[in-house]
Amino acid sequence: MKALAFDAYGTLFDVFSVTSLCEEMFPGDGKALATLWRSKQLQYTLLRSMMNRYKDFWQVTQDGLVYATHALGLHLDADKRTRLMDAYMTLAAFPDVKPGLQELKAMGLRLAVLSNGEPKMLQSAARNAGIADLLDAVISVDEVKVFKPSPRVYELASAHLKTSKSSIGFVTSNSWDAHGAGSAGLTTFWIQRAAVEPAEELGYPAAHVVRLLTDLPNIIRSF
Amino acid sequence: MKALAFDAYGTLFDVFSVTSLCEEMFPGDGKALATLWRSKQLQYTLLRSMMNRYKDFWQVTQDGLVYATHALGLHLDADKRTRLMDAYMTLAAFPDVKPGLQELKAMGLRLAVLSNGEPKMLQSAARNAGIADLLDAVISVDEVKVFKPSPRVYELASAHLKTSKSSIGFVTSNSWDAHGAGSAGLTTFWIQRAAVEPAEELGYPAAHVVRLLTDLPNIIRSF
Repeated sequence: MKALAFDAYGTLFDVFSVTSLCEEMFPGDGKALATLWRSKQLQYTLLRSMMNRYKDFWQVTQDGLVYATHALGLHLDADKRTRLMDAYMTLAAFPDVKPGLQELKAMGLRLAVLSNGEPKMLQSAARNAGIADLLDAVISVDEVKVFKPSPRVYELASAHLKTSKSSIGFVTSNSWDAHGAGSAGLTTFWIQRAAVEPAEELGYPAAHVVRLLTDLPNIIRSF
Repeated sequence: MKALAFDAYGTLFDVFSVTSLCEEMFPGDGKALATLWRSKQLQYTLLRSMMNRYKDFWQVTQDGLVYATHALGLHLDADKRTRLMDAYMTLAAFPDVKPGLQELKAMGLRLAVLSNGEPKMLQSAARNAGIADLLDAVISVDEVKVFKPSPRVYELASAHLKTSKSSIGFVTSNSWDAHGAGSAGLTTFWIQRAAVEPAEELGYPAAHVVRLLTDLPNIIRSF
């Protein structure tokens, strides 16, 4: 294993760190809004990819927010929309992320983000989390104008990290993303922080399941 | 307008008619199971299409059921699985479906089903609902091995109904399906029986919104 590519949202960055801002703006509805927003954001990446009508993750995230507020009967004015979208630029990283990346980097592995995110969103979140210097590449689907789990996305890792797919590990906390990367030929690691979700039934389950990013060094040393 | 193509599941056939069987098997969890099952079924059609790993709707429906029972901590034995899957062969049609189709047929329109469903599932559901004789074609995505909302699916309507896309109306109760068909060039009708869901934010909203299938004849006469 020569390189690792990490999913961003939900894996490095906690998308539910926007929940408290949602709750502050819409008391009593914060959790429902954050959950539906995330679910629609993902669904729209899939639907737009299949329609051949790609818009970048910033637009899709905003469209998901608009839908979610409509569905919950909440009034989203321009100021609230701007503040909620800005929160996506500065999502909190999970506490195991920085120490995990530091140890993997020290082992000589090349590290990258491989994400649905729009490039500026990814750069901003990485800087804000203090992990930008640990990354050799920040790879966005925007380059191929189709979202995960298209195999064209996972093939970007090989091109950017200048190594064969078989020596790249792909790390994600989204089970479907692991199936996608596995189907495309990468070695997959599923980060299951909460251990409440079963694996998806898509035919390409993760090769390895771990609880935290800091569990990766030991596993990789054992290869 | 010379022909109409109808989505099947959720539009002609009530997918939630399996809820009572779910509840009978898993008391207290029937509604949650039916809802999660449906949601996973749809998600798996999208994910498998994007992975270029098509499996037919029967398989995807079964995979969704397996995931949903795992997620809810329910034990699905072989007998329960068979009975729940069989229920998908004999879903109830909504009460406005047969009278609506009869009136549209009498107007000289050609009528078709255009569905994610596997051909045998569709034929069985149409026979069971007593509408098989009203249909000029039962068109399944299985022909192109990719699910909605790929434009390749909606283009099947034109080929099977032997008329140009601009003279085909597409009728669905799924807002995302209307966006998909609209993006592919069909005239779209969104059936909103419950009027609780907002339209999706995908750029191609339905041209017409109606409450019931029986509302279609008057609208089409007015063209």
